[in-house]
Amino acid sequence: MENDVIFIGKKPVMSYVLAVLTHLNSGNDKAVIKARGSTISTAVDVSQVVINKFMKDLKISNIEVGTEELDGKDGGKRNVSFISIVLNK
Amino acid sequence: MENDVIFIGKKPVMSYVLAVLTHLNSGNDKAVIKARGSTISTAVDVSQVVINKFMKDLKISNIEVGTEELDGKDGGKRNVSFISIVLNK
Repeated sequence: MENDVIFIGKKPVMSYVLAVLTHLNSGNDKAVIKARGSTISTAVDVSQVVINKFMKDLKISNIEVGTEELDGKDGGKRNVSFISIVLNK
Repeated sequence: MENDVIFIGKKPVMSYVLAVLTHLNSGNDKAVIKARGSTISTAVDVSQVVINKFMKDLKISNIEVGTEELDGKDGGKRNVSFISIVLNK
């Protein structure tokens, strides 16, 4: 499960699309796209490009949103939203 | 159902939090937070602030992501991702 996670950052959408496709074409039946904060919209884009352009039989089996507490730059805590999108063959 | 939709734009998160709270405190049991493109992350933030800070008994009953075709500026079509988060009392 942990090994199925593709974490979304600030790179272009296609970088993560390629990561998901590589993962699913390496003997894995599942990929979990995770993102925090402003990259959440990129995570949704990645799921849509993978499904609509490359693997039309792939299904979204679960979507979760929530809040994580991260260490802030000033030593305090800050809350950040996350999304987790589970893709299954 | 259509009347339960709060559409997320470029305003601050708290504007939409207030819109959702007002909707749910006006005799409605359901609110649907919808967003397209880069405002998707704001939609997730809005759902989390509403639940964690204001209405802890609220449940997310469904989350949907998908692609919509919009008219582009050049007269062509462009695809844009959306999210829909359903909150229920």
